[in-house]
Amino acid sequence: MTREVVLAARPEGEPKASDFELRETPDAVPDDGEVVVRNVFVSVDPYMRGRMTGIRTYVPPYEIGGPLDGGAVGRVVESRDENVAAGDWVVSQLGWRDRGVVAGSRLRKIDPSVAPPTTALGVLGMPGFTAWIGLLDVGRIQQGETIYVSGAAGAVGSAAAQIARLKGLRVIGSAGSAEKVEWLRTLGVEAFNYRETRAKEALADGIDVYFDNVGGSQLEVAISALRDHGRVIACGAVSRYNDARAEPGPRNMGLVITKRLRVEGFIIIDHFKRFPEFIAEALPWVRSGELEYRETIVDGLENIPDAFAGLFRGDNVGKMLVRVGPDD
Amino acid sequence: MTREVVLAARPEGEPKASDFELRETPDAVPDDGEVVVRNVFVSVDPYMRGRMTGIRTYVPPYEIGGPLDGGAVGRVVESRDENVAAGDWVVSQLGWRDRGVVAGSRLRKIDPSVAPPTTALGVLGMPGFTAWIGLLDVGRIQQGETIYVSGAAGAVGSAAAQIARLKGLRVIGSAGSAEKVEWLRTLGVEAFNYRETRAKEALADGIDVYFDNVGGSQLEVAISALRDHGRVIACGAVSRYNDARAEPGPRNMGLVITKRLRVEGFIIIDHFKRFPEFIAEALPWVRSGELEYRETIVDGLENIPDAFAGLFRGDNVGKMLVRVGPDD
Repeated sequence: MTREVVLAARPEGEPKASDFELRETPDAVPDDGEVVVRNVFVSVDPYMRGRMTGIRTYVPPYEIGGPLDGGAVGRVVESRDENVAAGDWVVSQLGWRDRGVVAGSRLRKIDPSVAPPTTALGVLGMPGFTAWIGLLDVGRIQQGETIYVSGAAGAVGSAAAQIARLKGLRVIGSAGSAEKVEWLRTLGVEAFNYRETRAKEALADGIDVYFDNVGGSQLEVAISALRDHGRVIACGAVSRYNDARAEPGPRNMGLVITKRLRVEGFIIIDHFKRFPEFIAEALPWVRSGELEYRETIVDGLENIPDAFAGLFRGDNVGKMLVRVGPDD
Repeated sequence: MTREVVLAARPEGEPKASDFELRETPDAVPDDGEVVVRNVFVSVDPYMRGRMTGIRTYVPPYEIGGPLDGGAVGRVVESRDENVAAGDWVVSQLGWRDRGVVAGSRLRKIDPSVAPPTTALGVLGMPGFTAWIGLLDVGRIQQGETIYVSGAAGAVGSAAAQIARLKGLRVIGSAGSAEKVEWLRTLGVEAFNYRETRAKEALADGIDVYFDNVGGSQLEVAISALRDHGRVIACGAVSRYNDARAEPGPRNMGLVITKRLRVEGFIIIDHFKRFPEFIAEALPWVRSGELEYRETIVDGLENIPDAFAGLFRGDNVGKMLVRVGPDD
């Protein structure tokens, strides 16, 4: 039997246990060109909260009673695709389940001798790629500039903060615990705990770029701190995804004109063409240790909903993952 | 004697008569390289409100008791610069006065046989150039797109709406009176009176670009109406310049991410290099009548403060000017 977590109800506010349901279904059987994958690590990502609300944005919403697709890494159990063999490590969009059948053409093979398979969901996967595209293509960062990264200890934030450092920027980062701040400082980030220090003080010297992972009040503070021709990389708004109603936005939008700011949003799925270039640059950094990563790994498929809710409580340092099967 | 309007007090809220003072000073005498200019038309512009607040932005603030620099066209009375001759029509930054002395190198000569001198302060001057740069370089408009221009009957807005039409866009425009709406409709603009029709309804089909001249609540409505990859040309915020305190911003900034929007501000003084290209494109349009303009001309130097205040009441159709001397 295949075990999976499905959406039982559209969450109101913070996602809770009763919004999800554990279901067992008979194993699907592969057709020609399809592959059976046993999931090992399943990704929980803040953007999934948006898909649970039922509003179509850049991806269709999740349906009540339907599966929760998303990033996962696993091993091929059986293959009817000549390009994939049993035993291969693969990245899929199988999501919150322990097993699934998928077209071989939709899998990306990974080599566990090059980097641990979990990195394909984190620093060398969608979060790392999001950080890289945001900095280079959206923010167009320049050596010598100062950047502020909010949510800097998260999967995207920690990659963004370090890539910015590697590109010669001064990096200020916010996080929500002493442990996270401590880690960021070892990475050369001027980190502060936003629960203790006001961002306004931390940014008093001014910034050139703001990498926004959290939305809300931080955006207003950053707009005030930005110098002329500053940019906001609008990447995420984790502080807002659970809002039941829309909250007022920045009161200082007039500064966008007087300081000639650019506030630009992006969605990583528009940029996949550049993924090979990202890997070519980031893999050596990861292998040399110049680009560090942390993972918060929760065990057990049944704990996926709580791990997901934990993203909004800031439970994770680095990438939050759930192990749903043996990782060998 | 030179008559000039100076700043008597920093306005709080809407500018009022007592914020200004009429002053007479002895005529300045030109040095080598300098020129005496008799102002004919003086420009009043919404951006001047910002300079009256005392906060340095992209230009220094006006000082209490000090002159109010700004665009003006006039005629040369006496020249000690070999490139300028008595009788020449010139554009200067002499501002709210009837006469002044300025370095000849800081004047731009205009030929009244090519276009009426007032156009150098409007459709062929800073407002028209602002519209052109905003559309082309900031908004990067494309034929076939739909654009919404707020304040579409103003000096910048009416140029923006028409240039967008000339570039093959569908144009929706807002204005605050039946007369303005009527004019815009003759220009091929789908105009609505924002005092009678909700912008949300007028934009129900969706837009690709928003040319923002007014700020405030229109920005939120436009962000909701923008399609994927939409742009906001953040040009002005005339609805906000008199605010005593900062008002909450758009509640829908999250859409900047999901719709991959770009909100970008600009200041025309950064773009002067492109002015000749603008004139090369816009002058034939003006001469052929493809690019129309209107002017609201108030007579008398002493009426400058009220003409200026009128900008925020929407008194002007097209460019607001004050005639401070004989125009022949």
